[in-house]
Amino acid sequence: MNSFFLTPQEDLRIRFKRVQKMLAEAGSDAALISTDVNIYYLTGIVFSGFMYIPAEGNPLWFVQRPSGLIGEHIIYIRKPEEIPGMLKERNILLPEYLLLETDQITHNEFLRIESAFRPVRTGNMTALLRKARMIKTPWEIEQFRFSAAKHAEVYRIIPSLFRKGMSEIAFQVEIERVMRQHGSIGMFRTFGSNMNIFMGSLLSGKNADTPSPFDFALGGSGIHPCIPIGASNDLIREESTIMIDFAGNFTAYMTDMSRTYSFGKLPEIAYRAHRVSMDMHRRLMDETKPGTACSDIYNQTLETAGKSGFSANFMGYSQQAKFVGHGVGLDINEPPVLMARSHDMLQAGMVFAFEPKFVLPEIGSVGIENTYLVTDTGLEKLTIFEEEIISLKS
Amino acid sequence: MNSFFLTPQEDLRIRFKRVQKMLAEAGSDAALISTDVNIYYLTGIVFSGFMYIPAEGNPLWFVQRPSGLIGEHIIYIRKPEEIPGMLKERNILLPEYLLLETDQITHNEFLRIESAFRPVRTGNMTALLRKARMIKTPWEIEQFRFSAAKHAEVYRIIPSLFRKGMSEIAFQVEIERVMRQHGSIGMFRTFGSNMNIFMGSLLSGKNADTPSPFDFALGGSGIHPCIPIGASNDLIREESTIMIDFAGNFTAYMTDMSRTYSFGKLPEIAYRAHRVSMDMHRRLMDETKPGTACSDIYNQTLETAGKSGFSANFMGYSQQAKFVGHGVGLDINEPPVLMARSHDMLQAGMVFAFEPKFVLPEIGSVGIENTYLVTDTGLEKLTIFEEEIISLKS
Repeated sequence: MNSFFLTPQEDLRIRFKRVQKMLAEAGSDAALISTDVNIYYLTGIVFSGFMYIPAEGNPLWFVQRPSGLIGEHIIYIRKPEEIPGMLKERNILLPEYLLLETDQITHNEFLRIESAFRPVRTGNMTALLRKARMIKTPWEIEQFRFSAAKHAEVYRIIPSLFRKGMSEIAFQVEIERVMRQHGSIGMFRTFGSNMNIFMGSLLSGKNADTPSPFDFALGGSGIHPCIPIGASNDLIREESTIMIDFAGNFTAYMTDMSRTYSFGKLPEIAYRAHRVSMDMHRRLMDETKPGTACSDIYNQTLETAGKSGFSANFMGYSQQAKFVGHGVGLDINEPPVLMARSHDMLQAGMVFAFEPKFVLPEIGSVGIENTYLVTDTGLEKLTIFEEEIISLKS
Repeated sequence: MNSFFLTPQEDLRIRFKRVQKMLAEAGSDAALISTDVNIYYLTGIVFSGFMYIPAEGNPLWFVQRPSGLIGEHIIYIRKPEEIPGMLKERNILLPEYLLLETDQITHNEFLRIESAFRPVRTGNMTALLRKARMIKTPWEIEQFRFSAAKHAEVYRIIPSLFRKGMSEIAFQVEIERVMRQHGSIGMFRTFGSNMNIFMGSLLSGKNADTPSPFDFALGGSGIHPCIPIGASNDLIREESTIMIDFAGNFTAYMTDMSRTYSFGKLPEIAYRAHRVSMDMHRRLMDETKPGTACSDIYNQTLETAGKSGFSANFMGYSQQAKFVGHGVGLDINEPPVLMARSHDMLQAGMVFAFEPKFVLPEIGSVGIENTYLVTDTGLEKLTIFEEEIISLKS
C-alpha cells in the first residue's frame, strides 16, 4: 500500500478530539458509529463493526471483520447486542444520550442498537460528523491536491482517447480505464438515497438534457433503465459538446472537475455560454472568503445567469438543479451546499466544487466545474487545468 | 435503449399482483417504497420518490424526479409530507398497518414517513419484497441468460489481456474495460451495510488470503485503505493462481461466476483442491431440486470439504466465510443464503450462485462459482464456461 494513503495517527487524533468536543457540546455521553465512511474518517481503516466514542476518554472498536486486528482498544464481537455487557465489564456506564448515524443506518439497525443500549434518548451522529468532516485537516488537503493532480493528468489524456464514430459510452469506457490506470479507486461514494452513478458522467448533444432521477447537476439516460444517468449508447455527433464530469477519486478525498470538450466547431452560442461559466468562476475567486454565505454565492450566480440571457439553460433545461456547488471529501456530496436555502457560511478548511453549467438543447452542456479550498483569506483553486472548450480531433 | 432491457408490462403486472397478495396476507393495508432497487422491480424504471402500494387496487407513483413522466398513476410531489393529503383527496383511507422498507431506508427517513402517515403500526416491506424477488419470472430468467452469455464471452477474452509483470490491479483494469465494452452497466448492487466492492474481485497469490471487512466469500487488500477489498498493487507471480470473480451485470439481473486462472504450472495441491470444488458442483447438480434445504447444501458441502482434507482452506484460510452460496438478482446478495442457519428451501424460479472455494496460502485461491436456476425438476446451470484451471500464457 502506498504510505501516502495511510492517515497519520496525529491527524486521526485531531479529528477524534474535534468530534469528541462536539459530542460533549451536544450534551451527549457517547456515540456509536458503524458506517464505513465515518469509521474510515476516525480510524484510517475500514472494519465491519462499531466504534464506541465516549464524550470523555478513549474510543473502543467493536470489530466483526476483518480478523487479525490487534490493540488495547480492539474487541471482537459477533453481534452488536454484546456491546453493552462488554462496556459494563470495563466499568463504563451505558450512555443516557446516545448519538447514532440516523441519516445513514437503516431503521432496523437503529432499533437493534436502541434495544441493546436502552438509552434515555438518541440523537443524530450523521449530522455531527458531516459537520466535523466539513473542515479539512492539512493532511486531508494534501490528499485533495494529489487527487487534483491526477485528475488533471487524466483530463489531459482525454483528447487522445477520442475517435470519430464513438458512442458516448465507448468514450466513457476509455476514460474509465485511464482513470483506473492512474490510480482511481473506482468507488464513487455518495451520501443519501437515490444517488447512483458509475465513476462519472459523460454527456453529449441532446443527452445532456435528459432528466434523471438522481440529484446531480446534470442527467443523461445511461445505457440501462436500472441506472438512468450519464453516457448513452448514442453516437457523438459533430457540432456537439461533450461535458466530462468524473470524480477525482485517486485518494479517499475526491476532487470534482468538469470540462467541456467539443467535436467540431460549435455554434457561437456555445462559446458564449461557456464564457459566462468561466466568468462566474472568476467572480467566485475574486469575491469569496471565509464568512461568505453559501446562499449568497447561489443567488449571485443565478443573477449572473439571468443577466447573461441564459437563465432557461442554467443547471439544466428540461429539469434544472437547484444548487450550483457542494462540499466534497470522502463523499462527493458533502456540506456545505451552494443553494438558496443554505444557512452555511464558508470557513477556512472547507473544500467545495462550483459547477455553473448551461444546457443547450441539441448542442450539449457547456461550462466548467472546479474544486476550491477555502483559505484564511480567500479561495485556492485545486483543479488546475485548461478551462476553455477543448477541441477534439477525430 | 436496447428494448430487450425494457420490462414488459405483463411481467410487471405479475410481480405487482404477487406483492399485493403478500401484502394482503400480511394483514397490511398498504406499503410505501422508495429505494431504487424495489421501485425498478415494480415499475421497470427508476424514479426518485415513493410508490404507494395498496393491498387492493392500483398503485400510485409520487415522483420527485425525473421531470416529464406522464400517466394517471403519476403524481408529482416536492416532499413525502404531501402524500397523505393527496391520498385523502382521492378518497383513499390512510393505512393503519403500513409496510416500509425498514431494512433499507434510514432511521430518519422512517421517522419522516411515520410522522406524516401516523399509522397504527408499521412492518417490514424490505423482507416482503426480498421474498417476492426470490422467485424469478420467465422474463427475469431471460435477462440472467443474457448476462450469463456476456459473462462467458468476457471470461473467454481474459487470457488475451494478461501480460507477465502485470500487477493484480493492472490486470483487473483491463478486464473492467472489456466488461464495459460488452455492456456491463458498471454498478454492482449489493444489499446491506459494509458491502463495498468495485465491479469484481481479482486475487492472486497471498492476497487471496487477506481478510476483508466485507461479507463476500473472499477478501483482498485493495489499492487503498478506504476500500480494502480485491486486487492489490502486487505483481502477479509465477506459480500462483488468479481467482477472477466479477459480477455479470450486463442486464439488471446479475450472474455470478468465478474462474481460476493460473500463471505458470501450479503445485499439485492446487489442482487437487480445485477438483474438489468441481466435484462439489457436480454433486450439487445431481442432488438438488425444489425442496432441498439451503442448510443441507451448506452442511454437505462442508462435509465434503472435510473429507477432502482441505477443511482449513475452505472459504478462506485466515478468515473463513460462513456461506457457500447466495441468491442473485438485482442485488448480488439476495436470499436464499446457503448457510447453516438458513431456514429456506429451494423453489422453482430461484436463481443462486454456488461458490465453494479454497484458499491456499502463497498460491492463491482455487475453485469455481456458477449461477444456477432452480427448475421444476432440478438445477440448470446458467454460467456455462470452461471449469478447469485456465492457464495464462505471458
